[in-house]
Amino acid sequence: MVSKAVAKYVHALHQKKYRLRHGAFLVEGGKSVLELLSSTLLTERLFVTAEFAAKISPLPAQVPVEVVSAEELTRLGTLATNQTALAVARLPEELPLPTAPGLLLALDEVRDPGNLGTLIRLADWYGLPGVVCSDTCADPWSPKTVAATMGSFTRVPVWQRNLPPWLASLPPTMPIYGADLHGDNVHRLQLQPQGVLVMGSESHGLTPAVEQCLTQRLHIPGRGQAESLNVAISAAILLDNFFRAG
Amino acid sequence: MVSKAVAKYVHALHQKKYRLRHGAFLVEGGKSVLELLSSTLLTERLFVTAEFAAKISPLPAQVPVEVVSAEELTRLGTLATNQTALAVARLPEELPLPTAPGLLLALDEVRDPGNLGTLIRLADWYGLPGVVCSDTCADPWSPKTVAATMGSFTRVPVWQRNLPPWLASLPPTMPIYGADLHGDNVHRLQLQPQGVLVMGSESHGLTPAVEQCLTQRLHIPGRGQAESLNVAISAAILLDNFFRAG
Repeated sequence: MVSKAVAKYVHALHQKKYRLRHGAFLVEGGKSVLELLSSTLLTERLFVTAEFAAKISPLPAQVPVEVVSAEELTRLGTLATNQTALAVARLPEELPLPTAPGLLLALDEVRDPGNLGTLIRLADWYGLPGVVCSDTCADPWSPKTVAATMGSFTRVPVWQRNLPPWLASLPPTMPIYGADLHGDNVHRLQLQPQGVLVMGSESHGLTPAVEQCLTQRLHIPGRGQAESLNVAISAAILLDNFFRAG
Repeated sequence: MVSKAVAKYVHALHQKKYRLRHGAFLVEGGKSVLELLSSTLLTERLFVTAEFAAKISPLPAQVPVEVVSAEELTRLGTLATNQTALAVARLPEELPLPTAPGLLLALDEVRDPGNLGTLIRLADWYGLPGVVCSDTCADPWSPKTVAATMGSFTRVPVWQRNLPPWLASLPPTMPIYGADLHGDNVHRLQLQPQGVLVMGSESHGLTPAVEQCLTQRLHIPGRGQAESLNVAISAAILLDNFFRAG
Protein backbone atom coordinates (compact mmCIF):
# COMPACT_ATOMS: atom_id res chain seq x y z
CA MET A 1 0.00 0.00 0.00
CA VAL A 2 1.50 3.29 -1.15
CA SER A 3 1.46 5.98 1.55
CA LYS A 4 -0.58 9.12 0.99
CA ALA A 5 2.53 11.28 0.94
CA VAL A 6 4.20 9.13 -1.71
CA ALA A 7 1.06 9.00 -3.84
CA LYS A 8 0.81 12.79 -3.60
CA TYR A 9 4.43 13.15 -4.71
CA VAL A 10 3.95 10.82 -7.68
CA HIS A 11 0.76 12.62 -8.70
CA ALA A 12 2.54 15.96 -8.52
CA LEU A 13 5.00 14.67 -11.12
CA HIS A 14 2.16 14.45 -13.64
CA GLN A 15 2.67 18.21 -13.92
CA LYS A 16 5.62 20.02 -15.44
CA LYS A 17 6.00 22.59 -12.70
CA TYR A 18 6.41 19.89 -10.05
CA ARG A 19 8.77 17.90 -12.25
CA LEU A 20 10.98 21.00 -12.40
CA ARG A 21 10.57 21.72 -8.69
CA HIS A 22 11.45 18.18 -7.63
CA GLY A 23 13.93 17.47 -10.43
CA ALA A 24 12.17 14.19 -11.16
CA PHE A 25 9.91 12.61 -13.77
CA LEU A 26 7.77 9.52 -14.29
CA VAL A 27 8.54 6.47 -16.38
CA GLU A 28 5.52 4.25 -17.00
CA GLY A 29 5.14 0.74 -18.37
CA GLY A 30 7.37 -2.29 -18.17
CA LYS A 31 9.43 -1.75 -21.30
CA SER A 32 10.29 1.86 -20.47
CA VAL A 33 11.07 1.01 -16.85
CA LEU A 34 13.44 -1.78 -17.93
CA GLU A 35 15.19 0.67 -20.26
CA LEU A 36 15.48 3.11 -17.35
CA LEU A 37 16.96 0.50 -15.03
CA SER A 38 19.60 -0.49 -17.56
CA SER A 39 20.54 3.14 -18.31
CA THR A 40 22.75 5.70 -16.61
CA LEU A 41 19.74 7.70 -15.40
CA LEU A 42 19.08 7.61 -11.68
CA THR A 43 15.96 5.83 -10.46
CA GLU A 44 14.52 7.29 -7.29
CA ARG A 45 11.63 4.93 -6.62
CA LEU A 46 10.07 1.95 -8.27
CA PHE A 47 6.54 0.60 -8.10
CA VAL A 48 5.91 -2.83 -9.60
CA THR A 49 3.22 -5.48 -9.65
CA ALA A 50 4.21 -8.84 -8.15
CA GLU A 51 3.94 -10.37 -11.60
CA PHE A 52 6.33 -7.86 -13.12
CA ALA A 53 8.73 -7.98 -10.15
CA ALA A 54 9.35 -11.62 -11.01
CA LYS A 55 10.66 -10.49 -14.39
CA ILE A 56 13.22 -8.07 -12.97
CA SER A 57 15.99 -10.04 -11.38
CA PRO A 58 17.75 -8.93 -9.41
CA LEU A 59 15.62 -5.99 -8.34
CA PRO A 60 17.85 -2.93 -8.35
CA ALA A 61 19.76 -2.40 -5.10
CA GLN A 62 19.62 1.05 -3.49
CA VAL A 63 16.27 1.87 -5.08
CA PRO A 64 13.18 1.72 -2.85
CA VAL A 65 10.82 -0.77 -4.48
CA GLU A 66 7.16 -1.16 -3.58
CA VAL A 67 5.12 -4.07 -4.84
CA VAL A 68 1.60 -2.83 -5.58
CA SER A 69 -1.57 -4.01 -7.28
CA ALA A 70 -2.28 -3.11 -10.91
CA GLU A 71 -5.12 -0.92 -9.63
CA GLU A 72 -2.79 1.05 -7.36
CA LEU A 73 -0.25 1.36 -10.16
CA THR A 74 -2.88 2.67 -12.53
CA ARG A 75 -4.04 5.20 -9.93
CA LEU A 76 -0.49 6.49 -9.47
CA GLY A 77 0.22 7.07 -13.13
CA THR A 78 -1.26 8.58 -16.26
CA LEU A 79 -1.86 5.46 -18.36
CA ALA A 80 -5.36 4.08 -18.87
CA THR A 81 -4.12 0.84 -17.29
CA ASN A 82 -0.72 -0.22 -16.04
CA GLN A 83 -0.13 -3.83 -15.01
CA THR A 84 3.65 -3.70 -14.93
CA ALA A 85 5.70 -0.86 -13.47
CA LEU A 86 6.11 2.84 -12.79
CA ALA A 87 9.33 4.56 -11.76
CA VAL A 88 10.30 7.98 -10.50
CA ALA A 89 13.59 8.98 -12.13
CA ARG A 90 15.85 11.98 -11.58
CA LEU A 91 15.89 14.56 -14.37
CA PRO A 92 19.37 14.27 -15.91
CA GLU A 93 21.85 17.13 -15.58
CA GLU A 94 22.07 19.08 -18.80
CA LEU A 95 25.21 18.17 -20.74
CA PRO A 96 27.20 20.87 -22.51
CA LEU A 97 25.91 21.31 -26.06
CA PRO A 98 28.24 19.41 -28.39
CA THR A 99 30.78 21.41 -30.34
CA ALA A 100 32.13 18.38 -32.21
CA PRO A 101 30.83 17.64 -35.72
CA GLY A 102 27.46 16.00 -36.05
CA LEU A 103 23.88 16.85 -36.87
CA LEU A 104 21.70 18.25 -34.10
CA LEU A 105 17.94 18.12 -34.46
CA ALA A 106 16.24 21.33 -33.31
CA LEU A 107 12.48 21.52 -32.77
CA ASP A 108 10.50 24.73 -33.07
CA GLU A 109 7.16 24.68 -31.23
CA VAL A 110 6.52 20.95 -31.53
CA ARG A 111 3.71 20.97 -28.98
CA ASP A 112 2.47 17.41 -29.34
CA PRO A 113 4.20 15.10 -26.85
CA GLY A 114 3.67 12.06 -29.09
CA ASN A 115 5.43 13.76 -31.99
CA LEU A 116 8.20 15.00 -29.69
CA GLY A 117 8.78 11.49 -28.33
CA THR A 118 8.84 10.01 -31.84
CA LEU A 119 11.39 12.64 -32.87
CA ILE A 120 13.63 11.81 -29.88
CA ARG A 121 13.42 8.16 -30.89
CA LEU A 122 14.38 9.06 -34.46
CA ALA A 123 17.39 10.97 -33.14
CA ASP A 124 18.36 7.76 -31.34
CA TRP A 125 17.92 5.64 -34.49
CA TYR A 126 20.22 7.91 -36.49
CA GLY A 127 22.67 8.33 -33.58
CA LEU A 128 22.34 12.12 -33.46
CA PRO A 129 24.22 13.92 -30.67
CA GLY A 130 20.90 15.20 -29.31
CA VAL A 131 17.76 17.26 -29.69
CA VAL A 132 17.39 20.98 -28.96
CA CYS A 133 13.79 21.91 -28.11
CA SER A 134 12.38 25.42 -28.19
CA ASP A 135 10.91 26.59 -24.89
CA THR A 136 7.53 26.30 -26.61
CA CYS A 137 7.82 22.57 -27.35
CA ALA A 138 6.00 19.93 -25.32
CA ASP A 139 7.88 18.99 -22.16
CA PRO A 140 10.49 16.33 -23.08
CA TRP A 141 9.93 14.80 -19.62
CA SER A 142 6.14 14.57 -19.68
CA PRO A 143 4.82 11.01 -19.30
CA LYS A 144 3.43 11.06 -22.86
CA THR A 145 6.70 12.20 -24.38
CA VAL A 146 8.71 9.67 -22.38
CA ALA A 147 6.36 6.86 -23.44
CA ALA A 148 6.53 7.87 -27.11
CA THR A 149 10.36 7.74 -27.10
CA MET A 150 10.05 3.95 -26.55
CA GLY A 151 13.10 3.98 -24.30
CA SER A 152 15.17 6.49 -26.26
CA PHE A 153 14.69 9.04 -23.44
CA THR A 154 17.52 7.17 -21.68
CA ARG A 155 20.00 7.74 -24.51
CA VAL A 156 19.28 11.01 -26.31
CA PRO A 157 20.47 14.26 -24.67
CA VAL A 158 17.84 16.97 -24.80
CA TRP A 159 18.33 20.71 -24.37
CA GLN A 160 15.75 23.46 -24.07
CA ARG A 161 16.67 26.79 -25.63
CA ASN A 162 15.17 29.93 -27.01
CA LEU A 163 15.97 28.91 -30.59
CA PRO A 164 16.58 32.22 -32.41
CA PRO A 165 19.36 33.52 -30.10
CA TRP A 166 20.85 30.04 -29.84
CA LEU A 167 20.91 29.59 -33.63
CA ALA A 168 22.35 33.10 -34.03
CA SER A 169 25.16 32.22 -31.61
CA LEU A 170 26.38 29.27 -33.69
CA PRO A 171 29.59 29.58 -35.75
CA PRO A 172 28.76 31.17 -39.12
CA THR A 173 30.26 28.15 -40.90
CA MET A 174 27.65 25.82 -39.38
CA PRO A 175 24.82 24.96 -41.78
CA ILE A 176 21.30 25.41 -40.42
CA TYR A 177 18.74 23.43 -42.41
CA GLY A 178 14.97 23.72 -42.24
CA ALA A 179 12.07 21.97 -43.94
CA ASP A 180 10.18 24.20 -46.36
CA LEU A 181 7.70 23.43 -49.13
CA HIS A 182 9.61 25.85 -51.37
CA GLY A 183 13.07 24.59 -50.45
CA ASP A 184 15.64 22.62 -52.44
CA ASN A 185 14.70 19.09 -53.48
CA VAL A 186 16.56 16.82 -51.04
CA HIS A 187 16.88 14.12 -53.67
CA ARG A 188 19.17 16.40 -55.69
CA LEU A 189 21.48 17.29 -52.79
CA GLN A 190 24.43 15.47 -51.24
CA LEU A 191 23.70 16.29 -47.62
CA GLN A 192 26.29 15.74 -44.91
CA PRO A 193 25.13 15.14 -41.33
CA GLN A 194 26.79 18.29 -39.97
CA GLY A 195 25.08 21.29 -38.47
CA VAL A 196 21.50 21.72 -37.32
CA LEU A 197 18.23 20.50 -38.84
CA VAL A 198 15.29 22.56 -37.56
CA MET A 199 11.76 21.16 -37.80
CA GLY A 200 8.61 23.16 -37.05
CA SER A 201 5.11 21.93 -36.33
CA GLU A 202 3.10 20.65 -39.26
CA SER A 203 0.35 23.21 -38.95
CA HIS A 204 2.44 26.29 -38.27
CA GLY A 205 5.82 25.53 -39.82
CA LEU A 206 8.87 27.35 -38.57
CA THR A 207 8.43 30.56 -36.61
CA PRO A 208 9.64 33.61 -38.60
CA ALA A 209 12.57 34.34 -36.25
CA VAL A 210 13.83 30.77 -36.66
CA GLU A 211 13.28 30.82 -40.40
CA GLN A 212 15.58 33.84 -40.68
CA CYS A 213 18.44 31.79 -39.21
CA LEU A 214 18.32 29.06 -41.89
CA THR A 215 21.18 28.70 -44.31
CA GLN A 216 19.36 26.13 -46.49
CA ARG A 217 15.72 25.19 -47.01
CA LEU A 218 14.95 21.55 -47.79
CA HIS A 219 11.93 20.17 -49.60
CA ILE A 220 10.75 16.55 -49.75
CA PRO A 221 9.28 15.97 -53.21
CA GLY A 222 5.84 14.35 -53.17
CA ARG A 223 3.86 13.12 -56.15
CA GLY A 224 0.34 13.03 -54.86
CA GLN A 225 -2.17 15.43 -53.40
CA ALA A 226 -1.56 15.31 -49.67
CA GLU A 227 -0.79 18.87 -48.56
CA SER A 228 1.85 18.12 -45.99
CA LEU A 229 3.41 15.44 -43.85
CA ASN A 230 3.48 15.01 -40.10
CA VAL A 231 6.59 16.56 -38.50
CA ALA A 232 8.02 13.20 -37.38
CA ILE A 233 7.46 11.65 -40.82
CA SER A 234 9.15 14.65 -42.50
CA ALA A 235 12.06 14.52 -40.07
CA ALA A 236 12.51 10.78 -40.71
CA ILE A 237 12.71 11.30 -44.47
CA LEU A 238 15.08 14.26 -44.15
CA LEU A 239 17.36 12.46 -41.68
CA ASP A 240 17.52 9.44 -43.98
CA ASN A 241 18.63 11.78 -46.75
CA PHE A 242 21.41 13.17 -44.50
CA PHE A 243 22.71 9.69 -43.70
CA ARG A 244 22.79 8.23 -47.20
CA ALA A 245 26.40 9.11 -47.90
CA GLY A 246 27.76 6.32 -45.79
CA MET B 1 -32.47 18.58 -32.53
CA VAL B 2 -31.42 15.25 -33.98
CA SER B 3 -34.13 12.60 -33.88
CA LYS B 4 -33.61 9.50 -31.78
CA ALA B 5 -33.61 7.28 -34.85
CA VAL B 6 -30.96 9.34 -36.59
CA ALA B 7 -28.79 9.52 -33.46
CA LYS B 8 -29.08 5.74 -33.16
CA TYR B 9 -28.00 5.30 -36.78
CA VAL B 10 -24.99 7.59 -36.36
CA HIS B 11 -23.98 5.83 -33.15
CA ALA B 12 -24.21 2.45 -34.88
CA LEU B 13 -21.62 3.67 -37.38
CA HIS B 14 -19.06 3.91 -34.56
CA GLN B 15 -18.84 0.13 -35.02
CA LYS B 16 -17.38 -1.75 -37.94
CA LYS B 17 -20.18 -4.28 -38.27
CA TYR B 18 -22.79 -1.55 -38.70
CA ARG B 19 -20.56 0.38 -41.11
CA LEU B 20 -20.48 -2.75 -43.27
CA ARG B 21 -24.18 -3.43 -42.81
CA HIS B 22 -25.20 0.12 -43.75
CA GLY B 23 -22.41 0.74 -46.27
CA ALA B 24 -21.62 4.02 -44.56
CA PHE B 25 -18.96 5.61 -42.35
CA LEU B 26 -18.40 8.73 -40.26
CA VAL B 27 -16.26 11.72 -41.10
CA GLU B 28 -15.59 13.98 -38.13
CA GLY B 29 -14.17 17.47 -37.81
CA GLY B 30 -14.36 20.49 -40.08
CA LYS B 31 -11.23 19.85 -42.16
CA SER B 32 -12.10 16.23 -42.95
CA VAL B 33 -15.73 17.12 -43.72
CA LEU B 34 -14.63 19.86 -46.14
CA GLU B 35 -12.33 17.33 -47.87
CA LEU B 36 -15.28 14.94 -48.10
CA LEU B 37 -17.59 17.56 -49.61
CA SER B 38 -15.05 18.48 -52.28
CA SER B 39 -14.37 14.82 -53.16
CA THR B 40 -16.11 12.27 -55.32
CA LEU B 41 -17.34 10.33 -52.26
CA LEU B 42 -21.06 10.50 -51.58
CA THR B 43 -22.24 12.34 -48.49
CA GLU B 44 -25.42 10.95 -46.99
CA ARG B 45 -26.03 13.35 -44.13
CA LEU B 46 -24.32 16.34 -42.65
CA PHE B 47 -24.44 17.76 -39.13
CA VAL B 48 -22.88 21.17 -38.57
CA THR B 49 -22.78 23.85 -35.93
CA ALA B 50 -24.26 27.19 -36.96
CA GLU B 51 -20.79 28.70 -36.74
CA PHE B 52 -19.31 26.13 -39.11
CA ALA B 53 -22.30 26.24 -41.48
CA ALA B 54 -21.40 29.87 -42.15
CA LYS B 55 -18.03 28.69 -43.47
CA ILE B 56 -19.51 26.26 -46.00
CA SER B 57 -21.09 28.17 -48.80
CA PRO B 58 -23.09 27.09 -50.51
CA LEU B 59 -24.22 24.21 -48.32
CA PRO B 60 -24.26 21.09 -50.50
CA ALA B 61 -27.49 20.57 -52.37
CA GLN B 62 -29.16 17.14 -52.16
CA VAL B 63 -27.56 16.35 -48.81
CA PRO B 64 -29.77 16.59 -45.70
CA VAL B 65 -28.08 19.10 -43.40
CA GLU B 66 -28.94 19.56 -39.74
CA VAL B 67 -27.62 22.49 -37.76
CA VAL B 68 -26.89 21.28 -34.23
CA SER B 69 -25.15 22.51 -31.10
CA ALA B 70 -21.53 21.57 -30.40
CA GLU B 71 -22.82 19.44 -27.51
CA GLU B 72 -25.13 17.46 -29.79
CA LEU B 73 -22.36 17.08 -32.35
CA THR B 74 -19.99 15.78 -29.71
CA ARG B 75 -22.60 13.31 -28.47
CA LEU B 76 -23.11 11.97 -32.02
CA GLY B 77 -19.46 11.33 -32.74
CA THR B 78 -16.34 9.78 -31.26
CA LEU B 79 -14.18 12.89 -30.74
CA ALA B 80 -13.65 14.31 -27.26
CA THR B 81 -15.19 17.55 -28.55
CA ASN B 82 -16.45 18.58 -31.95
CA GLN B 83 -17.42 22.18 -32.58
CA THR B 84 -17.53 22.00 -36.36
CA ALA B 85 -19.05 19.14 -38.36
CA LEU B 86 -19.78 15.45 -38.72
CA ALA B 87 -20.85 13.69 -41.88
CA VAL B 88 -22.16 10.27 -42.78
CA ALA B 89 -20.57 9.19 -46.07
CA ARG B 90 -21.18 6.17 -48.28
CA LEU B 91 -18.44 3.55 -48.31
CA PRO B 92 -16.92 3.76 -51.80
CA GLU B 93 -17.32 0.86 -54.22
CA GLU B 94 -14.14 -1.14 -54.43
CA LEU B 95 -12.20 -0.31 -57.59
CA PRO B 96 -10.47 -3.08 -59.55
CA LEU B 97 -6.93 -3.55 -58.28
CA PRO B 98 -4.58 -1.73 -60.66
CA THR B 99 -2.67 -3.82 -63.15
CA ALA B 100 -0.76 -0.86 -64.56
CA PRO B 101 2.75 -0.17 -63.32
CA GLY B 102 3.13 1.55 -60.00
CA LEU B 103 3.97 0.76 -56.40
CA LEU B 104 1.19 -0.56 -54.17
CA LEU B 105 1.56 -0.36 -50.41
CA ALA B 106 0.37 -3.53 -48.65
CA LEU B 107 -0.14 -3.63 -44.89
CA ASP B 108 0.12 -6.82 -42.86
CA GLU B 109 -1.68 -6.68 -39.50
CA VAL B 110 -1.33 -2.95 -38.93
CA ARG B 111 -3.85 -2.88 -36.11
CA ASP B 112 -3.41 0.68 -34.92
CA PRO B 113 -5.89 3.00 -36.70
CA GLY B 114 -3.60 6.02 -36.21
CA ASN B 115 -0.74 4.23 -37.98
CA LEU B 116 -3.07 3.00 -40.71
CA GLY B 117 -4.37 6.52 -41.33
CA THR B 118 -0.85 7.93 -41.44
CA LEU B 119 0.12 5.23 -43.97
CA ILE B 120 -2.87 6.08 -46.20
CA ARG B 121 -1.80 9.72 -46.04
CA LEU B 122 1.75 8.75 -47.02
CA ALA B 123 0.37 6.81 -49.99
CA ASP B 124 -1.39 10.03 -51.01
CA TRP B 125 1.82 12.09 -50.60
CA TYR B 126 3.75 9.76 -52.89
CA GLY B 127 0.83 9.36 -55.31
CA LEU B 128 0.62 5.58 -54.93
CA PRO B 129 -2.20 3.77 -56.76
CA GLY B 130 -3.55 2.57 -53.39
CA VAL B 131 -3.18 0.57 -50.21
CA VAL B 132 -3.98 -3.14 -49.78
CA CYS B 133 -4.81 -3.98 -46.15
CA SER B 134 -4.78 -7.47 -44.69
CA ASP B 135 -8.09 -8.56 -43.17
CA THR B 136 -6.34 -8.24 -39.81
CA CYS B 137 -5.53 -4.52 -40.19
CA ALA B 138 -7.50 -1.83 -38.39
CA ASP B 139 -10.66 -0.87 -40.27
CA PRO B 140 -9.72 1.73 -42.93
CA TRP B 141 -13.14 3.34 -42.37
CA SER B 142 -13.07 3.61 -38.59
CA PRO B 143 -13.37 7.20 -37.32
CA LYS B 144 -9.80 7.14 -35.95
CA THR B 145 -8.32 5.90 -39.22
CA VAL B 146 -10.30 8.42 -41.26
CA ALA B 147 -9.18 11.26 -38.95
CA ALA B 148 -5.54 10.19 -39.15
CA THR B 149 -5.56 10.26 -42.96
CA MET B 150 -6.05 14.04 -42.72
CA GLY B 151 -8.34 14.03 -45.75
CA SER B 152 -6.41 11.43 -47.79
CA PHE B 153 -9.27 8.93 -47.25
CA THR B 154 -11.03 10.78 -50.10
CA ARG B 155 -8.23 10.16 -52.59
CA VAL B 156 -6.48 6.85 -51.84
CA PRO B 157 -8.17 3.61 -52.95
CA VAL B 158 -8.06 0.93 -50.27
CA TRP B 159 -8.55 -2.81 -50.71
CA GLN B 160 -8.90 -5.52 -48.08
CA ARG B 161 -7.38 -8.88 -48.95
CA ASN B 162 -6.03 -12.02 -47.40
CA LEU B 163 -2.45 -11.07 -48.25
CA PRO B 164 -0.68 -14.42 -48.81
CA PRO B 165 -3.03 -15.71 -51.56
CA TRP B 166 -3.25 -12.26 -53.12
CA LEU B 167 0.54 -11.87 -53.20
CA ALA B 168 0.87 -15.41 -54.56
CA SER B 169 -1.54 -14.53 -57.38
CA LEU B 170 0.58 -11.64 -58.66
CA PRO B 171 2.61 -12.04 -61.87
CA PRO B 172 5.97 -13.67 -61.04
CA THR B 173 7.79 -10.70 -62.58
CA MET B 174 6.30 -8.31 -60.04
CA PRO B 175 8.74 -7.44 -57.23
CA ILE B 176 7.39 -7.80 -53.69
CA TYR B 177 9.43 -5.82 -51.18
CA GLY B 178 9.29 -6.04 -47.41
CA ALA B 179 11.05 -4.29 -44.55
CA ASP B 180 13.44 -6.52 -42.64
CA LEU B 181 16.25 -5.74 -40.19
CA HIS B 182 18.44 -8.23 -42.06
CA GLY B 183 17.52 -7.03 -45.54
CA ASP B 184 19.50 -5.14 -48.15
CA ASN B 185 20.61 -1.61 -47.28
CA VAL B 186 18.19 0.66 -49.17
CA HIS B 187 20.87 3.30 -49.55
CA ARG B 188 22.84 0.97 -51.79
CA LEU B 189 19.92 0.09 -54.10
CA GLN B 190 18.38 1.88 -57.06
CA LEU B 191 14.74 1.14 -56.31
CA GLN B 192 12.02 1.70 -58.88
CA PRO B 193 8.44 2.38 -57.73
CA GLN B 194 7.02 -0.78 -59.31
CA GLY B 195 5.47 -3.73 -57.54
CA VAL B 196 4.35 -4.06 -53.93
CA LEU B 197 5.92 -2.82 -50.70
CA VAL B 198 4.61 -4.81 -47.70
CA MET B 199 4.90 -3.36 -44.20
CA GLY B 200 4.16 -5.29 -41.01
CA SER B 201 3.47 -4.00 -37.54
CA GLU B 202 6.43 -2.72 -35.58
CA SER B 203 6.11 -5.23 -32.78
CA HIS B 204 5.37 -8.35 -34.80
CA GLY B 205 6.91 -7.65 -38.19
CA LEU B 206 5.59 -9.50 -41.21
CA THR B 207 3.60 -12.68 -40.71
CA PRO B 208 5.52 -15.79 -41.89
CA ALA B 209 3.14 -16.54 -44.78
CA VAL B 210 3.60 -12.99 -46.11
CA GLU B 211 7.35 -13.08 -45.59
CA GLN B 212 7.56 -16.14 -47.83
CA CYS B 213 6.10 -14.12 -50.70
CA LEU B 214 8.80 -11.43 -50.64
CA THR B 215 11.22 -11.17 -53.54
CA GLN B 216 13.47 -8.60 -51.80
CA ARG B 217 14.03 -7.60 -48.17
CA LEU B 218 14.88 -3.97 -47.46
CA HIS B 219 16.73 -2.56 -44.49
CA ILE B 220 16.94 1.08 -43.35
CA PRO B 221 20.41 1.60 -41.92
CA GLY B 222 20.42 3.30 -38.52
CA ARG B 223 23.42 4.51 -36.56
CA GLY B 224 22.16 4.64 -33.03
CA GLN B 225 20.69 2.33 -30.46
CA ALA B 226 16.94 2.50 -31.05
CA GLU B 227 15.78 -1.05 -31.78
CA SER B 228 13.20 -0.31 -34.41
CA LEU B 229 11.10 2.39 -36.00
CA ASN B 230 7.36 2.88 -36.04
CA VAL B 231 5.71 1.32 -39.13
CA ALA B 232 4.64 4.67 -40.60
CA ILE B 233 8.10 6.16 -40.09
CA SER B 234 9.73 3.12 -41.74
CA ALA B 235 7.28 3.23 -44.64
CA ALA B 236 7.98 6.95 -45.16
CA ILE B 237 11.72 6.37 -45.36
CA LEU B 238 11.34 3.38 -47.69
CA LEU B 239 8.88 5.17 -49.99
CA ASP B 240 11.22 8.14 -50.20
CA ASN B 241 13.95 5.75 -51.31
CA PHE B 242 11.66 4.36 -54.04
CA PHE B 243 10.91 7.82 -55.39
CA ARG B 244 14.43 9.21 -55.53
CA ALA B 245 15.15 8.22 -59.08
CA GLY B 246 12.98 10.41 -61.11
